[in-house]
Amino acid sequence: MDETSKSKGFKTLLLATVSIFAIAGGQAQEEEPLVLKAQGSFFVGGHTIHTDAVTGTPGGLVGTGNGGSITVDQMYVQYQVPAGTSQHVPVVMLHGCCLTGKTYETTPDGRMGWGEYFVRNGWPVYIPDQVSRARSSFDATTINEVRVGTRPASSLPNIFTFSHELAWEAFRFGPTFGTAFGDEQFPVKAADEFGKQVVPDLNAILSPTANPTWTNLSALAIHLKGAVLMGHSESGFFPEQAALVSATDIRGAISLEPITCSSATPTPQDLPSLAKIPILVVFGDHLGDVPSFRDFWLPIFAACQQFVQQINNAGGDATMLHLPDAGLFGNSHMLMQDKNNLQVADLILAWIDKHVEGEARD
Amino acid sequence: MDETSKSKGFKTLLLATVSIFAIAGGQAQEEEPLVLKAQGSFFVGGHTIHTDAVTGTPGGLVGTGNGGSITVDQMYVQYQVPAGTSQHVPVVMLHGCCLTGKTYETTPDGRMGWGEYFVRNGWPVYIPDQVSRARSSFDATTINEVRVGTRPASSLPNIFTFSHELAWEAFRFGPTFGTAFGDEQFPVKAADEFGKQVVPDLNAILSPTANPTWTNLSALAIHLKGAVLMGHSESGFFPEQAALVSATDIRGAISLEPITCSSATPTPQDLPSLAKIPILVVFGDHLGDVPSFRDFWLPIFAACQQFVQQINNAGGDATMLHLPDAGLFGNSHMLMQDKNNLQVADLILAWIDKHVEGEARD
Repeated sequence: MDETSKSKGFKTLLLATVSIFAIAGGQAQEEEPLVLKAQGSFFVGGHTIHTDAVTGTPGGLVGTGNGGSITVDQMYVQYQVPAGTSQHVPVVMLHGCCLTGKTYETTPDGRMGWGEYFVRNGWPVYIPDQVSRARSSFDATTINEVRVGTRPASSLPNIFTFSHELAWEAFRFGPTFGTAFGDEQFPVKAADEFGKQVVPDLNAILSPTANPTWTNLSALAIHLKGAVLMGHSESGFFPEQAALVSATDIRGAISLEPITCSSATPTPQDLPSLAKIPILVVFGDHLGDVPSFRDFWLPIFAACQQFVQQINNAGGDATMLHLPDAGLFGNSHMLMQDKNNLQVADLILAWIDKHVEGEARD
Repeated sequence: MDETSKSKGFKTLLLATVSIFAIAGGQAQEEEPLVLKAQGSFFVGGHTIHTDAVTGTPGGLVGTGNGGSITVDQMYVQYQVPAGTSQHVPVVMLHGCCLTGKTYETTPDGRMGWGEYFVRNGWPVYIPDQVSRARSSFDATTINEVRVGTRPASSLPNIFTFSHELAWEAFRFGPTFGTAFGDEQFPVKAADEFGKQVVPDLNAILSPTANPTWTNLSALAIHLKGAVLMGHSESGFFPEQAALVSATDIRGAISLEPITCSSATPTPQDLPSLAKIPILVVFGDHLGDVPSFRDFWLPIFAACQQFVQQINNAGGDATMLHLPDAGLFGNSHMLMQDKNNLQVADLILAWIDKHVEGEARD
């Protein structure tokens, strides 16, 4: 390796090593061993299509041609089942925009995530990557067709993500980028670490009225013979959308700070259908305190309060958990990664116990 | 939801449910509980850049503009550390082209993967997604710039993947697509399931002579105060490349069917440097038996045999494990997912015991 590359490599190496140490320093937790009955990963859904653009070059990967069969619309799922005799309902934890299943894993500042916490408390946990995200793959056909020239640049999908600056304000780390709320629960010192888990979002290539993730969530609940579906933000209302594909085996729906509380294709049957399923909607704090996003969060919150009311009026069992009302202050949009994330988790587990499993939680 | 979407949703739901059952049927293994001292995930490397194209629309995500800071070159890592008193060296397991960390998880036909098997045998395991892949994110800037019109279509990265047809022959499931070798170890009945874990590969956006994954692997070994690095296929020689960034704390290098045994930027110091590290190169069976790929695999195998010889001539400790010579026949390119994958793993663990840890394995 030439000297310039070598010294560049060393410099990057030093930076990389330092960055891990900064996080590892917060990881010295003494925990009981985690005892699992089973773990693994599998896919839900997916089907084979023929594409003429397996790669971005006309000859394809080995020069013999660029056509072939690929799989699309599949959803990667990783799971852990705790050992022990408790018979808790499985919980499926789905991430939101521009993020991945990492959302529910170790927090940016090195603390336990909800995935492991729910398992330690006796609940089987299933963590997907949304269709067209991360380990669920995505269909690159159109991008490749544009590259080889068979489609115009205007055909490209709108691949979006959020910048560090936008995340700070949209997720309510503080009133403006770089300034945190006094009681802010998000570990803002690890905001850069959080930035590493942000990925491009290709949901724009999926149908907005028949997102394959909804169907896959429904199939997963049926496969598990009953599950609580949990969504967040972009996917906050996906549990309800999945229930509108089929309510079979959906034992509960949890919507964490959903960006909507309305179906993509509303019908009069929606409310009666959803009223059969226990529903929990969760919002954090400071909903109106970020000037650039008060007109985003406040209307959504109001719409979700109305949704909860409508479900209850229709004979259902819906609960709005606005964390400040429960005595938890300062929660951000990333409430599963906030410093008090395990306290928030306890509230959710208590709701599952009571509204889904019919138990009082000790 | 209108009737057409609803019936389409149900049909897709039935297909999705059936596909999970087909896999779950093979999962009824009775195993001892898996007892972990620790688990989690974190990132290695990554740095912040400014992009003018956070999304593919000029206004950006919320209409205020399309510029902002994003993180690139980070590497997602998921780990598990077994409980118990054994002090085995951590093993980092890196996937290849067009795949993800899923490579080392549950096999396509529902059996235990190497990740869990190594942990059950007492080794801490760290499974990354390569830089620019899956949960490690990728920089979509150029794609978005082409979409908004500030760059020509020719700027697009060459995003590649492999088709089902190509995989069958390249990975030596059989001599031609759809026909398996009589002793084929890859679970070909689950070939479609394998297709679900195939993802677009954006390595073309990374430097071919200074791939950030190499630096990140080196940083990870240093963070772990010593690790064995394992690569596969596209990343098969990445452990060696990482050692050429820095050999510090790289306790061993395992190259599984690497697509090259040469450094991207060869220098006379390479051999002396690499000769300090125990090296294992592993190849499966039928290397010359797929007509369309005999001129791919046989030269690579020969080059790697030569590499092993050169390392040993330089005073190193390199081993070529050609599985048929060890009495294991029929192994494909995906030897960690083959039906005899745990027997292959035992051979690798025995090598680590002897050549890295200086122990005879019972």
